[in-house]
Amino acid sequence: MNAIIISIGNELTSGQTIDSNSAYLSEQLGSLGIETLSHVTVGDDRAATARAIIAAAGEAQLVLVTGGLGPTADDLTRHALADAMGGVELVQDAASLAELEDFFRRRGRSMVDANRIQAMFPAGSRPIANACGTAAGIAARVGGATVYVMPGVPSEMRRMFAERIAPELPSGRVAIVRRTLCTFGAGESDVGARIDDLMARGANPLVGTTVDAGLISIRVASRAATPDEAARQADATIAEIARRLGDLVVGQGEHAMSAAVGMELRRRGQSLATAESCTGGLIGGMITDVAGASDYYLGGVVSYANSVKRDLLAVGQDILAANGAVSEPVARAMAEGCRRRFGADWAVSATGIAGPSGGSNDMEKPVGLVYIGLCGPGCEEVHRHVLPGDRSGIRTRAALTALNHLRLGLRMRLRTRC
Amino acid sequence: MNAIIISIGNELTSGQTIDSNSAYLSEQLGSLGIETLSHVTVGDDRAATARAIIAAAGEAQLVLVTGGLGPTADDLTRHALADAMGGVELVQDAASLAELEDFFRRRGRSMVDANRIQAMFPAGSRPIANACGTAAGIAARVGGATVYVMPGVPSEMRRMFAERIAPELPSGRVAIVRRTLCTFGAGESDVGARIDDLMARGANPLVGTTVDAGLISIRVASRAATPDEAARQADATIAEIARRLGDLVVGQGEHAMSAAVGMELRRRGQSLATAESCTGGLIGGMITDVAGASDYYLGGVVSYANSVKRDLLAVGQDILAANGAVSEPVARAMAEGCRRRFGADWAVSATGIAGPSGGSNDMEKPVGLVYIGLCGPGCEEVHRHVLPGDRSGIRTRAALTALNHLRLGLRMRLRTRC
Repeated sequence: MNAIIISIGNELTSGQTIDSNSAYLSEQLGSLGIETLSHVTVGDDRAATARAIIAAAGEAQLVLVTGGLGPTADDLTRHALADAMGGVELVQDAASLAELEDFFRRRGRSMVDANRIQAMFPAGSRPIANACGTAAGIAARVGGATVYVMPGVPSEMRRMFAERIAPELPSGRVAIVRRTLCTFGAGESDVGARIDDLMARGANPLVGTTVDAGLISIRVASRAATPDEAARQADATIAEIARRLGDLVVGQGEHAMSAAVGMELRRRGQSLATAESCTGGLIGGMITDVAGASDYYLGGVVSYANSVKRDLLAVGQDILAANGAVSEPVARAMAEGCRRRFGADWAVSATGIAGPSGGSNDMEKPVGLVYIGLCGPGCEEVHRHVLPGDRSGIRTRAALTALNHLRLGLRMRLRTRC
Repeated sequence: MNAIIISIGNELTSGQTIDSNSAYLSEQLGSLGIETLSHVTVGDDRAATARAIIAAAGEAQLVLVTGGLGPTADDLTRHALADAMGGVELVQDAASLAELEDFFRRRGRSMVDANRIQAMFPAGSRPIANACGTAAGIAARVGGATVYVMPGVPSEMRRMFAERIAPELPSGRVAIVRRTLCTFGAGESDVGARIDDLMARGANPLVGTTVDAGLISIRVASRAATPDEAARQADATIAEIARRLGDLVVGQGEHAMSAAVGMELRRRGQSLATAESCTGGLIGGMITDVAGASDYYLGGVVSYANSVKRDLLAVGQDILAANGAVSEPVARAMAEGCRRRFGADWAVSATGIAGPSGGSNDMEKPVGLVYIGLCGPGCEEVHRHVLPGDRSGIRTRAALTALNHLRLGLRMRLRTRC
């Protein structure tokens, strides 16, 4: 089975509200084995809504519509649905009207006339009760498709879908299981080249990549007759990708980078401290995104001013004067000073130019230049990067790059004191 | 002029990613007086993308497409555009290829063959340079419509639209100007109750609110015949809202909280340091989101372990032992110790329980409990909060709450040393 999702509302087409309903419904449908072909958003416009419903019903077997069921003049979805059903009339549903009146009575309010429209439904359709609001949903047939209309308020929509609509849907003959593997340290094209054969169009599992601040997510969607079989296929593909990409693979799930660093530290019973300049605290922030980080993370110094690099991290004034704050020797001294100050097994440092200004004209020190220092048992490294993006992108990438060097350092080094 | 926006990606139709690009572009188009008729989202499917482009070009004068310009096998938008243009060939653009090679050379990496596709464009189209990535955009004509294709990475898309595409668009007959005022420190319903009369449906300017991690954004959209008139109306409404909400108003624009704190510090020529426990660096990270923060921000200590609170912030072991790390005395001592250690005019501290575990059973110290310490000229405060949300929400709210107390402390205190 396949589906098209339609969202209605001027607040969506004007960009004042981001549509989260369609993504929610797509995910829910996917778990039922129903593939979403497309999302369509139109404004509070009767003709445009009717056209969108008719077009969707011609293309998909299931059409889910959200929004435009309110009591005010710009709520036109029930009229548009009636148009799409071939121009049927709206007729009052006595049970829905009683429920509406009851809804207001329970809240000690009297129902205004405007709400009566919420008990009117296209002839031949079926009302769907709303457990937490006045906007009942509607089930109907348009052409060969089943159409469900739900309120646009996310909480009402989600409850109606879960309790009233999902149970009516045929559980697809196909189960879909999704996995996402997170990689860092190579370009999207490098990653793509190594798994090119797995990314063929129409393949099963279907493999795709997306990139955000240097983190490349490899998404795997597996289809099979049963959830178990789909999961088995997905895991086999994930394992094959992981085998090919080796150390580029950070892990799965949210906060994959911080979780990977934490797992390696916990496994070794080692501790970590951070020394941050251009990242201003983002590295510490990422590390502590993961619950239980206090098992290995001692803390850090944000040494934004040079005086702090000197006083708290013992970076020599001569090193600062000779090389500038954004330099290999300073990154090294920050990491070393931090490790010593905190008595940590590992320390990682970042110093760079986040921009938009502060870069040198000769491109020797451009905006985006970042040095990452790493210091740990048997390990002393400094890495130079010129990172792309705006201030925010450079800072996020710098923090992720620091954590990635730490992750690789942890994986490669033996447990010996340096 | 009117427009249709098309987003491409399986991560969107599967619901794994929420599409924020379309809302951004709609808002930008609105400010140019261009109405968005609809948003359409399709998966990484060449035929479906081509059909969507052709259908949109038949309905709207302007078609904006995002996504599918990457170097991997699932990036098919350039092929789909060529199909929509009547089946033209992809041809190599020498200048784009040179830019791509330069992009990799500047980063000290060699370009892999897969990236060459990013220098290929449908015959008769025009490349649009990408200032911060490898995916150049494309401008083309399909039927009577102008089509622009942009990368799906939001930061790259936004910059390309603002710098390269918006300047090419005709401005419409109705100007729409939007402003967003950011408030903090009261609930959405409290804020709404004070500006209820301004939020009438269909009003001009149209006023709406959205909330994220305790930051309430009040959105004002003003329509008028000219941009100047629309801006004048919007500013008058913003001024009225600001008058009613007083100190709840943080400011306008991105990073409003950090910018407000920075402005107050800069105005006074005073400096700031941070002492963070549960926030792990997020406060420092937010402060340094704003370019030029080095004018007032010296740095901070992330004192995740108690030993760090003791050794770097001089929090007495007796205070820690008697009260626990999450307590009013510790928050106070962290701020005081931080201020002294950094020689800063102001110091702000945060210590709390971000969860999901770590709260006490008797609810004396529940998950979400956060103490904010503030210390500055004529100022010594500790504030207790129990913040809602999951770990991530509590941490973000805690950091914003700390900055908000600092903002209010700065606004209320005279310039006297305590």
